[in-house]
Amino acid sequence: MQNSTNNHTTIAAAATGPGGAIALIRLSGPQAIAIAEKVFSKPLADAPGYTVHFGTIADGERILDEVLVTLFRASKSYTGEDMVEISCHGSSYITREILALLIRHGAVPATAGEFTRRAFLNGKLDLSQAEAVADLIASESGAAHRIALNQMRGGYAAELAGLRAELLHITSLLELELDFSEEDVEFADRSELERLLTTIRNRCRALAGSFRTGNVLKNGVPVAIVGAPNAGKSTLLNRLVGEERAIVSDIAGTTRDFIEESLTLEGIRFRFIDTAGLRHTDDEIEALGIERTKERISRSTLILLLVSEPLPPSEIEERIRSLQLSDDQRLILLFNKSDLWDTALLTEKFASACPVLSIAARTGEGVEALKALLIQSVETDIPDDSLIVSNIRHYEALLHASEALDRAIAGVARGLPADLISEEVRQVLHYLGTITGEITTDDILGNIFSKFCIGK
Amino acid sequence: MQNSTNNHTTIAAAATGPGGAIALIRLSGPQAIAIAEKVFSKPLADAPGYTVHFGTIADGERILDEVLVTLFRASKSYTGEDMVEISCHGSSYITREILALLIRHGAVPATAGEFTRRAFLNGKLDLSQAEAVADLIASESGAAHRIALNQMRGGYAAELAGLRAELLHITSLLELELDFSEEDVEFADRSELERLLTTIRNRCRALAGSFRTGNVLKNGVPVAIVGAPNAGKSTLLNRLVGEERAIVSDIAGTTRDFIEESLTLEGIRFRFIDTAGLRHTDDEIEALGIERTKERISRSTLILLLVSEPLPPSEIEERIRSLQLSDDQRLILLFNKSDLWDTALLTEKFASACPVLSIAARTGEGVEALKALLIQSVETDIPDDSLIVSNIRHYEALLHASEALDRAIAGVARGLPADLISEEVRQVLHYLGTITGEITTDDILGNIFSKFCIGK
Repeated sequence: MQNSTNNHTTIAAAATGPGGAIALIRLSGPQAIAIAEKVFSKPLADAPGYTVHFGTIADGERILDEVLVTLFRASKSYTGEDMVEISCHGSSYITREILALLIRHGAVPATAGEFTRRAFLNGKLDLSQAEAVADLIASESGAAHRIALNQMRGGYAAELAGLRAELLHITSLLELELDFSEEDVEFADRSELERLLTTIRNRCRALAGSFRTGNVLKNGVPVAIVGAPNAGKSTLLNRLVGEERAIVSDIAGTTRDFIEESLTLEGIRFRFIDTAGLRHTDDEIEALGIERTKERISRSTLILLLVSEPLPPSEIEERIRSLQLSDDQRLILLFNKSDLWDTALLTEKFASACPVLSIAARTGEGVEALKALLIQSVETDIPDDSLIVSNIRHYEALLHASEALDRAIAGVARGLPADLISEEVRQVLHYLGTITGEITTDDILGNIFSKFCIGK
Repeated sequence: MQNSTNNHTTIAAAATGPGGAIALIRLSGPQAIAIAEKVFSKPLADAPGYTVHFGTIADGERILDEVLVTLFRASKSYTGEDMVEISCHGSSYITREILALLIRHGAVPATAGEFTRRAFLNGKLDLSQAEAVADLIASESGAAHRIALNQMRGGYAAELAGLRAELLHITSLLELELDFSEEDVEFADRSELERLLTTIRNRCRALAGSFRTGNVLKNGVPVAIVGAPNAGKSTLLNRLVGEERAIVSDIAGTTRDFIEESLTLEGIRFRFIDTAGLRHTDDEIEALGIERTKERISRSTLILLLVSEPLPPSEIEERIRSLQLSDDQRLILLFNKSDLWDTALLTEKFASACPVLSIAARTGEGVEALKALLIQSVETDIPDDSLIVSNIRHYEALLHASEALDRAIAGVARGLPADLISEEVRQVLHYLGTITGEITTDDILGNIFSKFCIGK
């Protein structure tokens, strides 16, 4: 682990959003308690950690506020350093004045994520846990929250670290062989090595495979609503999210742009994409809309295809084909305006190919059944929480690790020499190490923590 | 003091604004610690006040977050009741889930200002201090902050309470006389009574007199910039606030509406009001603007009159007269575009009547001197902080008390019987009591605390 930030400084920042009754200002670093004591009305130097003190913050004679000061002592604090939290009245003026005062007394303004970066550098969190802190703060649904909390509390990283330790051991045996290369000994049992490499490869593959699910649970499941002009796409969207956001009109081709609405069902966020009707058109703006519709469809996990009149089955099949769905996209066929026509025959025809539902968006008929179907479509995807990767950085590291493992396994099978196998295993160690932060660089850290908010 | 809220309930609310790294949830009431213990991973029942505990909040098996829990025990807490503060990750999802969990375990959602209302009802703060808490949170400048903090820390209320106690004593003597009315005794020394009533009346008058200042310091000093069309009013405003907000144009009569900008100088907020040019016009919209200009001038504390060309002194005098300024309004005469004409003679002519300054708004010449003059004009108004009333409710109570005191003093001088004097003194006691909250009603309390934010 590289420790290159300026850890002897004491940082300060507001940790709460504006507009509340209370604001919290955090100090962390070797001078945190000394600086706080300079501006606080009571002695703090001998106070134990995890204690709270009521008093005033003053700039010389000028009292700034009555506050509560909470003390944490290294290493039993969030950052692992001495920390002070000042709970003051929630005025942006007071927060600004107290921060300015702390800075005049030697603190430096914290950069984004600097508290958590210090926690990582001081070994309080591994890197994947630190990343989960930001995800946790940003979580807006039960599923996103569960994944982030699981990751913050260890998640798969602890297991990866264990597997990595086993690999390290076996690599050292492989490298010992190199020292005795002229004697042709094998310290590392080849079948044991192959078994271990395969176990880790399978685990990495399973985790990487969970990324698509993890990502949609974290960011919401993209659902495209498609169909011919006037098929009732906007009406359905309004029904689903219960708000009149999309402009509903009887003029075909009304919806030219994308309106995104989201709905959280049983903790899973669905992001509905209302699209321009798919038809041939001479209207340039509308044509542009259709082009973008196709692009959005390709990025959706679920596609709701609306058919609102009795069409020949071949015509419906043609429409499904034109969606050019990939294997991991799911189609739900909706026969809309089902109060106006008999959907039984077509339902029978398509039920074996994909989920089919008759609805009447205008009256709300079948919309609850559709919601249940949406949840069900995603839940069959969800593995055990501890298996879900939602971070693209981790996903890419796992992919690279899997590839290197494939090469190492093949090498063992082909009886390649220890140095070649060892090189591949070193690659695996590197990629797994970047996930938990055993291997890291300032660039990686800078990139990760710059996405945090200030004060965290 | 009336205690009519439901004090046996335990209230809960988020106390921080959205969007921070950390959110704070507060619980207050007899069950605060018991409810927190039901959802927290560690025992709290025997923990002393002013201690902090790290652990997890869980809904049964489902962990919601890793948090810090701070305990306060009655009566050494903000509300005077048992209190728990939960510091969790600043996600609105997590905040909502934890609040919902606390409510399922018996807490009730706090109404606006309910924590401070309980602090008042439990005698932790008097009413004027409670009101200052809201002012403190809303404070946006050094002056507003100083007034609010002073009031929160006791301010003039403590002195009023002392004077009120003296009055109470003398009233009891007056009322004792009534019991012995047939014997014609005077327990209350009349000259002593008159002295006391006069002291209190003078104090009430001085406080009421500080309200105009207190109010402008709290809400900002309104400064009207007036002058003939094209005199450079918008240019001056832009120079002062350093931003190009007002539309500057060479076409006379451009500024038809009011643009308000503010500038904080040495802790005092000045609210500049750019106005339509004062001239006769046939343009209806512009005429309307001029009407509103006159109204805004009448509500300004400072008036900056711009003269941007050599005019006969009588013409300038006529313009000043047309402003119809009252005694407590201050005029500053500005000779603008002073790089284009000689302002010396007119300066000499008017310097004895009001502050006069030569400026060139376009180049910035003289603008710093004007800022100094603005500060000086307000500062001569500012009495000792403890004398400043910024709350209109207190101001009105002080006016009523002064009037009742005038009547009581006149009654003593005219040798009126004890019961008539006593009735006036009871009025004074009532009005002074409403300031600190010795006398209050649910209506008054409801009105005051409904302006607070939730969580305070």
